[in-house]
Amino acid sequence: MISKVSELLKSWENILVLSHASPDGDTLGSACALMRGLIKIGKNVSFKCSDSIAPKFAYLFEGIKLGEFEPDKVVAVDVASISLLGDIREEFEGKIDLAIDHHASHINYAEVDFVDSKSAANAEIIYNLLKEMGIEIDKKMADCIYTGTATDTGCFRYRNVTSQTHRIAAEMLDLGADFGDINQIMFETKTKEQNAAEILALSSIEYFLDGKIAMLSITRDLMERTGITDEDLDVFASKPRQIAGVVVGVTLKEKPEGGFKASVRTNAPVNASEICQKLGGGGHMGAAGCVIKDDNIEDAKKKILGACEEYLAEINR
Amino acid sequence: MISKVSELLKSWENILVLSHASPDGDTLGSACALMRGLIKIGKNVSFKCSDSIAPKFAYLFEGIKLGEFEPDKVVAVDVASISLLGDIREEFEGKIDLAIDHHASHINYAEVDFVDSKSAANAEIIYNLLKEMGIEIDKKMADCIYTGTATDTGCFRYRNVTSQTHRIAAEMLDLGADFGDINQIMFETKTKEQNAAEILALSSIEYFLDGKIAMLSITRDLMERTGITDEDLDVFASKPRQIAGVVVGVTLKEKPEGGFKASVRTNAPVNASEICQKLGGGGHMGAAGCVIKDDNIEDAKKKILGACEEYLAEINR
Repeated sequence: MISKVSELLKSWENILVLSHASPDGDTLGSACALMRGLIKIGKNVSFKCSDSIAPKFAYLFEGIKLGEFEPDKVVAVDVASISLLGDIREEFEGKIDLAIDHHASHINYAEVDFVDSKSAANAEIIYNLLKEMGIEIDKKMADCIYTGTATDTGCFRYRNVTSQTHRIAAEMLDLGADFGDINQIMFETKTKEQNAAEILALSSIEYFLDGKIAMLSITRDLMERTGITDEDLDVFASKPRQIAGVVVGVTLKEKPEGGFKASVRTNAPVNASEICQKLGGGGHMGAAGCVIKDDNIEDAKKKILGACEEYLAEINR
Repeated sequence: MISKVSELLKSWENILVLSHASPDGDTLGSACALMRGLIKIGKNVSFKCSDSIAPKFAYLFEGIKLGEFEPDKVVAVDVASISLLGDIREEFEGKIDLAIDHHASHINYAEVDFVDSKSAANAEIIYNLLKEMGIEIDKKMADCIYTGTATDTGCFRYRNVTSQTHRIAAEMLDLGADFGDINQIMFETKTKEQNAAEILALSSIEYFLDGKIAMLSITRDLMERTGITDEDLDVFASKPRQIAGVVVGVTLKEKPEGGFKASVRTNAPVNASEICQKLGGGGHMGAAGCVIKDDNIEDAKKKILGACEEYLAEINR
């Protein structure tokens, strides 16, 4: 399959790369590493994402010459289902030539869906693909690949990590990836305001089902009072699950347009994706998400709690 | 040097291994990996540390048969200076045959001091040494080596990481190291009480020198009220430095016997070790510590702040 994908990409000329909505380090790192590789072998590339790119990711795009052209071919990276394209879904539905993804929950939507769910990060697949295509990985590409692998594994902390993940990271370090700066930007920098928000967020944690479920909730009001942005909040999603005895950690965040985003993190054998699928969402075994349309936080809490309890009853926990 | 150390260890029979006081994952992972290797080649081993071992580290020792014997030879692992042996210093001063250490600030105290400050974790040196000795690394040793490398690098997040660190981690995963469980124990588990303590600790952060210095302080009183232990607190040391604009992060913890322990974390080019050396302590470039004997927290704050300001003035920051 990888050789077929390699041949496809080599045969194309004007290629548009798509990242998923609410773009993270892996979808952007994958897109930028791939675009840099394609440029190296003489292709024209362009990029699209429904949402704006957080300033902390600017270095991934640095020096990439984005062309202005009618794309012949469209490639989606790290996009598990067509709905995750966000606002550009309608524009591209039925028109995606290649999807490169690592989600076990991937639902085919492209002409060719190249899925390797054993890769902890989608950037690992891009690494293997660039090697397959015979493209030499340079320092800037190494920054992009390192960013993808580090951000999708909680900096090599999660259970999705494999020896491949560490081997690729080792090679990226040897190629000069600025891992120290990247880790500091991605994992270690918060503002005084974020510190204040973290205190309030941690203080909001409530326990349910004898402490098996912990839920952190953040209202728009809290976000506005502390000046914290949506991007800032990703870091909180892992907090509730980290508490001893908790098997399901939920972070419930009010969306600007109304409704709530629930991020679910679980300890094995509890499957976060199966919980979120009950409410129309999805994701990975240990990390998944869904959107709850209620405007009242207590109703939203009840819905996600209901899904958690139903699932836990099903698996007799 | 490594071949000489390998030959020395092979020539000895009854070997006592020492870890540093307030033992962490690297000194214990190093000691246990080394002891397991020595047992494999027929040596008798024993272990000593001035302080008790936290229950979370019990798996490192699982199945190691500690002998009761008069040791012929004494080996210290991850001990940067004789004073870091703590209460067993007097017993062993002048009697240590081999020190295996990775601290750039290492002060020789052994018959043979084998120091490799390029290794992010001391466990990396133990890995190289076991390979040099021709000892096959098994799953239990892999757990120990992985623990050392992960804990001394903030799970591969710090700037001390090298491609060697990732390559060793990759090999330990292939050898079956339970990295998921280890990471969860070391980095992701806190009790409800620790969560409460974290909220109070983060709330205690004060800023000095226009936000260049951030200080988190924990009194004995807070520790007693929240039921938090000294071991629980390690995780807070990195918090103050993570705030945007901060170049020196200080965590000041009241010691049970009186006085304060200051843990200093810095962003390059600020050298934490040089700051702590001003107060009789030491450590690494980015992470160091010292003990302040004052009983009053305000006096202790003034002393460590004075050392920080003096150092920052020296380097014109």
